[in-house]
Amino acid sequence: MRAIVVERPGGPEALKLVEVPTPTPGEGELLVRVKAGAINRTDILARKGVGSAYKKATSRLGVEMAGVVETVGANVGGWQAGDKVMGLVSGGYAEYAVIPADRAMPIPDNLSFIEAAAIPEVFLTAYQTLYWIGKLQEGETVLIHAGASGVGTAAIQLAKQVSKATVIVTAGTDEKLSYCKQLGADHAIHYKQVSFDEEVTRLTKGKGANLILDLIGAPYWNKNIQSASMDGRVVLIGTLGGKETGPIDLFELMGKRLQITGTLLTPRSDEYKASLSQELADRILPLFASGAIKPIIDKVFPLEEIHNAHRRMEADENIGKIIFQVGDQE
Amino acid sequence: MRAIVVERPGGPEALKLVEVPTPTPGEGELLVRVKAGAINRTDILARKGVGSAYKKATSRLGVEMAGVVETVGANVGGWQAGDKVMGLVSGGYAEYAVIPADRAMPIPDNLSFIEAAAIPEVFLTAYQTLYWIGKLQEGETVLIHAGASGVGTAAIQLAKQVSKATVIVTAGTDEKLSYCKQLGADHAIHYKQVSFDEEVTRLTKGKGANLILDLIGAPYWNKNIQSASMDGRVVLIGTLGGKETGPIDLFELMGKRLQITGTLLTPRSDEYKASLSQELADRILPLFASGAIKPIIDKVFPLEEIHNAHRRMEADENIGKIIFQVGDQE
Repeated sequence: MRAIVVERPGGPEALKLVEVPTPTPGEGELLVRVKAGAINRTDILARKGVGSAYKKATSRLGVEMAGVVETVGANVGGWQAGDKVMGLVSGGYAEYAVIPADRAMPIPDNLSFIEAAAIPEVFLTAYQTLYWIGKLQEGETVLIHAGASGVGTAAIQLAKQVSKATVIVTAGTDEKLSYCKQLGADHAIHYKQVSFDEEVTRLTKGKGANLILDLIGAPYWNKNIQSASMDGRVVLIGTLGGKETGPIDLFELMGKRLQITGTLLTPRSDEYKASLSQELADRILPLFASGAIKPIIDKVFPLEEIHNAHRRMEADENIGKIIFQVGDQE
Repeated sequence: MRAIVVERPGGPEALKLVEVPTPTPGEGELLVRVKAGAINRTDILARKGVGSAYKKATSRLGVEMAGVVETVGANVGGWQAGDKVMGLVSGGYAEYAVIPADRAMPIPDNLSFIEAAAIPEVFLTAYQTLYWIGKLQEGETVLIHAGASGVGTAAIQLAKQVSKATVIVTAGTDEKLSYCKQLGADHAIHYKQVSFDEEVTRLTKGKGANLILDLIGAPYWNKNIQSASMDGRVVLIGTLGGKETGPIDLFELMGKRLQITGTLLTPRSDEYKASLSQELADRILPLFASGAIKPIIDKVFPLEEIHNAHRRMEADENIGKIIFQVGDQE
């Protein structure tokens, strides 16, 4: 089969489409013919060879895909050849990928493979962040940074549809802000034009946000603390803006009784990914089937042009997920 | 009645014993004749007028006491005059104090008032920190800073007796280290002689501590992050060493998936204090009654000499709780 490999870390041109052996499904695994997959920030870090968590991934990239079960290993529950599945994998930038059966999710009938490929990573991350870590309660206020990003667009929809939360987002262009509002965001803050902490304070009448989802990191750190409510939770899922903070006032952190949690999905254990995927399948896939929640597609590239998909993400141009497709989509 | 008041924030000499009206118990409240109480860091901050959370307390000090119910308000459940009670109050530095009945705890028969006065604040804080926030699991490793402090001596005993945890403490004198080991600590680190993060790493064979209780703050911040295990929790309950950190590496926080929580007990809601006190009474008081856990008394001062009790705490000389007693203890 053909797959994207990175022989030497570098820019988008480091992504090479080459012939590699087709994998064989082991016990509890499915071999899937990949129809589509999505680009993630973690792929870009892996391509560049950044971060110890990513080193294992540097030869083969791609953490999610959607496709058709080709063959099954022993003990895979009810899965069989021909089933349409999506989920988290290693080496998803390829014509075939192996996925543990206990983390495979069925693709709702109303979705294409391209739409399905936009679901796993960002909806699992948003769900984990909002509920497993952030403990979002119905009617709370959540501040979602990078609201037009893949995780942002997923989190806006989950917070509104599942929790009737008041959703405040930040983004850096009018187009992105307007898109976030279409998805249900109550307030959209142009972070280049106003100081988001002052705006959150104003919008919440001084109470602050109960939960903050941040993937910007260092430059937002103290403003996040200012924006948080009493007993607020801040979940850090990225450091796109830098990783080293300035001085932090711990007395403020203590006085507000804040909880700050860092998390990454890709390096989590197989068991964790399986139970998170199963919960998402049970609780959230019905909302995709009914159309209440939808995958957000930015642009679709053929697998052969995946370097251009990386360029688009690095230029921060996307609203929602950047997808690659493999072959025709019949 | 006589009570300690602070007319103007300042040093220990600002504590004045004066005549004030005896309070009246309202609905759901008990009036308690105070037999003993304890000194807390929050009292010192209140005396100095530090921190917005403390301002309300500056005229009357004292957050815990033990004594005998004198009279009861309406709807106080099973409590009656003559019962021996302990618990969290406002204005405990006094001959009488009012306590909401739903947070009063019965004093086990084997304990004196002086011993009972050493229980509420530190055992509630340690319990809250280890279990409600820190989610300590049986057999985990917990790092307890300031192990010989009131909260430290409480946390060591809870972590060993309730959770069979591996307990590592830090302290600054050989006497304190040795006392922590008597209480059950597995390892005691002299923080002035070795770098505690390196020692924790060595003792845990590189795994780190699952839970860290810190009341030192800024100077320990990065070392705490180094000392924490994957999925580690750091609970910040004080900033005795300073409140402003240096730069923090968020990538490390994210890579280890750390959870950092700040908390203070005194400013919590009445409901919170009531349910925490009830859980402590149900789960932990039997361990006091059996002698498995004991209150740790440092030194006892008469109410009239409470300024010397403050001096002792500010000089960091205590092991366990500094107590004041009111009148005779028959």
